[in-house]
Amino acid sequence: MKILLLTGSTRNDGNSEQLAHAALQGLSYETIQLKDLDIKAIEDLRHTDEGFHPVDDDYTKVLEAILRSDLLVLATPIYWYSMSGTMKNVIDRFSHAIRDTRYPNVTEHLKTMKAVVIAVGGDQPRIKGLPLIQQCQYTFDFLKIEFYSYIIGEARKPGTIHNDKLALQQAAYLNEQLRTLS
Amino acid sequence: MKILLLTGSTRNDGNSEQLAHAALQGLSYETIQLKDLDIKAIEDLRHTDEGFHPVDDDYTKVLEAILRSDLLVLATPIYWYSMSGTMKNVIDRFSHAIRDTRYPNVTEHLKTMKAVVIAVGGDQPRIKGLPLIQQCQYTFDFLKIEFYSYIIGEARKPGTIHNDKLALQQAAYLNEQLRTLS
Amino acid sequence: MKILLLTGSTRNDGNSEQLAHAALQGLSYETIQLKDLDIKAIEDLRHTDEGFHPVDDDYTKVLEAILRSDLLVLATPIYWYSMSGTMKNVIDRFSHAIRDTRYPNVTEHLKTMKAVVIAVGGDQPRIKGLPLIQQCQYTFDFLKIEFYSYIIGEARKPGTIHNDKLALQQAAYLNEQLRTLS
Amino acid sequence: MKILLLTGSTRNDGNSEQLAHAALQGLSYETIQLKDLDIKAIEDLRHTDEGFHPVDDDYTKVLEAILRSDLLVLATPIYWYSMSGTMKNVIDRFSHAIRDTRYPNVTEHLKTMKAVVIAVGGDQPRIKGLPLIQQCQYTFDFLKIEFYSYIIGEARKPGTIHNDKLALQQAAYLNEQLRTLS
Repeated sequence: MKILLLTGSTRNDGNSEQLAHAALQGLSYETIQLKDLDIKAIEDLRHTDEGFHPVDDDYTKVLEAILRSDLLVLATPIYWYSMSGTMKNVIDRFSHAIRDTRYPNVTEHLKTMKAVVIAVGGDQPRIKGLPLIQQCQYTFDFLKIEFYSYIIGEARKPGTIHNDKLALQQAAYLNEQLRTLS
Repeated sequence: MKILLLTGSTRNDGNSEQLAHAALQGLSYETIQLKDLDIKAIEDLRHTDEGFHPVDDDYTKVLEAILRSDLLVLATPIYWYSMSGTMKNVIDRFSHAIRDTRYPNVTEHLKTMKAVVIAVGGDQPRIKGLPLIQQCQYTFDFLKIEFYSYIIGEARKPGTIHNDKLALQQAAYLNEQLRTLS
Repeated sequence: MKILLLTGSTRNDGNSEQLAHAALQGLSYETIQLKDLDIKAIEDLRHTDEGFHPVDDDYTKVLEAILRSDLLVLATPIYWYSMSGTMKNVIDRFSHAIRDTRYPNVTEHLKTMKAVVIAVGGDQPRIKGLPLIQQCQYTFDFLKIEFYSYIIGEARKPGTIHNDKLALQQAAYLNEQLRTLS
Repeated sequence: MKILLLTGSTRNDGNSEQLAHAALQGLSYETIQLKDLDIKAIEDLRHTDEGFHPVDDDYTKVLEAILRSDLLVLATPIYWYSMSGTMKNVIDRFSHAIRDTRYPNVTEHLKTMKAVVIAVGGDQPRIKGLPLIQQCQYTFDFLKIEFYSYIIGEARKPGTIHNDKLALQQAAYLNEQLRTLS
């Protein structure tokens, strides 16, 4: 099973990323830090005559990494009760990706994938992060990706995710499960 | 009452924007199309020694417009069951704005504001758009902005919001209410 | 189109019921006030050898009314951010109804039905009533009932739903739509 | 710290109850199985001249147990994506309890309490159980009860909660936390 970790934080080594690494410990996986890429906001051309056209940025790097993976791990800080804008722009671009004539098998490939969401926030994330999880569910349902699991962690200052024993336990448990998949 | 409309669509004259114009018909308001601005994703520097520093983009245009307004209308297409990444980046930047030493009264000003959310989507938006509304509620609660009202419309193709009679009725009703405020 | 209105209030002529009557004005429909019936809480016997057995209460009245209807209108006050316990007990009994050997076509009949939810509450119902709507969506999805529409109204004291012009407008609009169905 | 466990299942020793016992293992607590009590649906008399009057059922047993407790553990099966009707009727009766002249300190006492919710369901409960958690949050917020923690477990057949290692881990972790409180 090939694993791709996308991190949506704007910090290096942010709490959500650390929690993701804990969940993936000992497994082989590719990491893409979205903050290091240039990903433009989608331009919605679904309803124009010409449709979408290639965009000159790094999105194809993300898309190609997805196409060679079986498990997608989205690790995002919870900014204002949802995923970071950095990650949202990547998700928004799926509307292009599933219509991109250069990559005709995106839709089919996504149907074979599983996804994990790891989100860390500071303001009651286990309650106020729930709408984010529901949105991910709707998104994965639309794309027919299996929503394998999610972990919500609580932390504010850098590195303090290690004080959230519950999230760490969940990460350890997810790690066990992922090992049985591969 | 000064009204600011922020549109999150990547299209000119998108459905959410049209619905917002319907709600604001006959009222005086300023419109900022976010797609025409350069707004960078936030860099989370809350926990660094130096804190946030000025970013060279158009965010201060948005912030200054907010500071001279009493009512904030956020009009966004529903992309993947939440606001557009374009708009999300603006919201994310609030974390900087409320700590921006150049604008010391942001927090106080926001407490005096009301907000309206107008969101239009194509896939069961009146159900699957609800998490977005919940996130806005949490956000406005945090900032102590009064969440005055929201309208969810259903449309896919450009201009078809005019077939959603329910949304148009709600816009007309909101229009009446807003007239009584000013 | 045969319409069945189930009211979950414990008051006569409660706000949610009044709003439902507004939505159904001029249409022919049957009303069952759940408070006038004896509906026991479900006893979960799904996993026993003998399974469910007939219960001596008024549930079959509700079930038989559903079986002769095409549109189910659930009108409930929002008590503690969800439907009333009175109505919840009726919903819970669906677990029995779909396995009730005396009514072998419940599952098939439900798939042909549409449902409308009308909920009225006093504490920010258009925000805090959203989880209730999501639960109804999950329930109707499971039963393959079409979730046709919902209206959330705001009122506390008896009769004050008539001050909620937005809800009344939505009821008038729903009324128009329902007329085109029949 | 005095702990009260209310179970909302209609089965003896249901999965949600077993998960609650796991979370409370080794601690001293009182258990009330709601299915063994006669709890009537609320009659909403808030707006009548005479107000609420005593109801001849077992509610005061529940209320008095709450009044002598510091931590309330609600263990409920997830029926149709929310708490059981049996438990909902108990929650609904809070509207009476906080206005019950025989128990003048209910409101004050609740503000000193913490609550834990333990919910077990069979159909993607970690996603589809989230609206239930949101409703509990709104309820506890209203009553100023601290929402201490929640656990969502997945199980259908009796006793199978023991296959949900993640829920068991969360129960063990909660158990540790509760020990530090007492």
